[in-house]
Amino acid sequence: MQADRGPVAILAGAGRLPELMADRLRRAGRDCRVLAFRGFAETALRKKADAVVDLLDVKRALACLEMWRPSAVTLAGGLQRPKAGAVLNAFSVFRNRQELSDLMGRGDDQLLRGVVELLEEKGMPVVGVLDLAPELLAPAGVQTARAPEAQDRSAIEAGLRLLRDLSPYDVGQAAVVSGERVLAIEGPEGTDRMLARVQSIGRAWFSRRTPQGGVLVKAPKKGQDLRVDLPAIGPRTVVRAAKAGLSGIAVASGRTLVLDRDETVGLCDRYGLFLLGVEPPSSAADEARG
Amino acid sequence: MQADRGPVAILAGAGRLPELMADRLRRAGRDCRVLAFRGFAETALRKKADAVVDLLDVKRALACLEMWRPSAVTLAGGLQRPKAGAVLNAFSVFRNRQELSDLMGRGDDQLLRGVVELLEEKGMPVVGVLDLAPELLAPAGVQTARAPEAQDRSAIEAGLRLLRDLSPYDVGQAAVVSGERVLAIEGPEGTDRMLARVQSIGRAWFSRRTPQGGVLVKAPKKGQDLRVDLPAIGPRTVVRAAKAGLSGIAVASGRTLVLDRDETVGLCDRYGLFLLGVEPPSSAADEARG
Repeated sequence: MQADRGPVAILAGAGRLPELMADRLRRAGRDCRVLAFRGFAETALRKKADAVVDLLDVKRALACLEMWRPSAVTLAGGLQRPKAGAVLNAFSVFRNRQELSDLMGRGDDQLLRGVVELLEEKGMPVVGVLDLAPELLAPAGVQTARAPEAQDRSAIEAGLRLLRDLSPYDVGQAAVVSGERVLAIEGPEGTDRMLARVQSIGRAWFSRRTPQGGVLVKAPKKGQDLRVDLPAIGPRTVVRAAKAGLSGIAVASGRTLVLDRDETVGLCDRYGLFLLGVEPPSSAADEARG
Repeated sequence: MQADRGPVAILAGAGRLPELMADRLRRAGRDCRVLAFRGFAETALRKKADAVVDLLDVKRALACLEMWRPSAVTLAGGLQRPKAGAVLNAFSVFRNRQELSDLMGRGDDQLLRGVVELLEEKGMPVVGVLDLAPELLAPAGVQTARAPEAQDRSAIEAGLRLLRDLSPYDVGQAAVVSGERVLAIEGPEGTDRMLARVQSIGRAWFSRRTPQGGVLVKAPKKGQDLRVDLPAIGPRTVVRAAKAGLSGIAVASGRTLVLDRDETVGLCDRYGLFLLGVEPPSSAADEARG
């Protein structure tokens, strides 16, 4: 449908990622178009976007894409799940109502998969940060002045195993583990609110002077579509983790977005946290084979 | 060390369970002694307790037990994990400091196991609700006017599988599942605060008019010591679940305590929730064998 040399279309939600990606693509000499979602995309980006569209105005969004004839589409930045009724109405042009109703009962995974399918049916390949800007991903190894100690290492291992075992369920891209105790598993509330929870658990159980020394562990689920759903950390994550009394953050290297890396690492150093890029463990099936 | 006809000693924490158990034992003609923990046991019970002891005054607690020569000891009611430093000091009389320090880094499971071992070393068998008052446990089947529908059944199945797969980790006696979406997994914050979280997720995503129809699923972990750590629900759980917009509650039958059963079931009926006792699924290992 479109020429291979068509632009990259960025469907832009909240946060700094859409702008970072647009900058990088332009600097690399690639043509790109930004479709900003009203109420989500940051004001600065929205002002220079090629189109500003309501999240639920699927018809207009698709019309823009068909006009631009992109060689690839990328979904960048955060979008909140809108109210069920509104989604049903908006999408009913394209999909059977019952099918959509079923979809809403499922996890974010399935919803995103629906969007990706819709775009690819229209002949627009969906790509992600891994393809377009891999330099935004967490490198392997210790990134900070502080390095994880033995007990942090075992907490990290337990956390990675836990997240792996949660892969079949549509939940849990992150957990907080202290020693062998799991302090929290992330649900749809997101990392920030999970860390706030850990902070209040910490207060009830431990004296305020004794940091509980847990680790925030983030890794994608097995089978997760990394083009549209990548674990991410940034400066705010570090501040929250420090407030919760954690000793550090471990993320799946090459599979976790680090927003504003310099600031993120700088804040880790300021608060005395470690930041580690790790290789997630092989699957249970692999282990059985090995 | 003690005669087989010695009394049952109840180590009483917070909530109604210790008193319910004392009542039932006395009605069944069994002699019992209550050791109430200061700051935890309810005032009414504390007033008629045989001893009131600080949670960390292990020496006095053991002295009471040795005087009573109980034929069995039971731990009933809630206790909050005290500050790490205080525990270390209190227990250092009995246990190597390093060993205790390791213990504090572990989950509640391990801590309770330590207490049970200590009591049994002293020749006092530890028993639980299953042995002393099985009538307080959830029966199998639907307990309410409302029965779970097909989508609730699949949410319950998913929840039970999830909890089973979390068994190796010291977390998760409960989860909330809606359709195939896991809305929350319980950490050390407890069921009430998990339900409050689900309530606020619901607000962000769905219109307030549409209940999200999730199910609270509670079941013990595989290998959990049911004598000292039993999942529990009660009237407060029902109120919280109703506020979170859930359609019902499913608990492992014969393995979940239902406090104030009449009131709990009455509140379910009032709020239009179902209450179901279910048989947890067999373990993954059993499935592989089958």
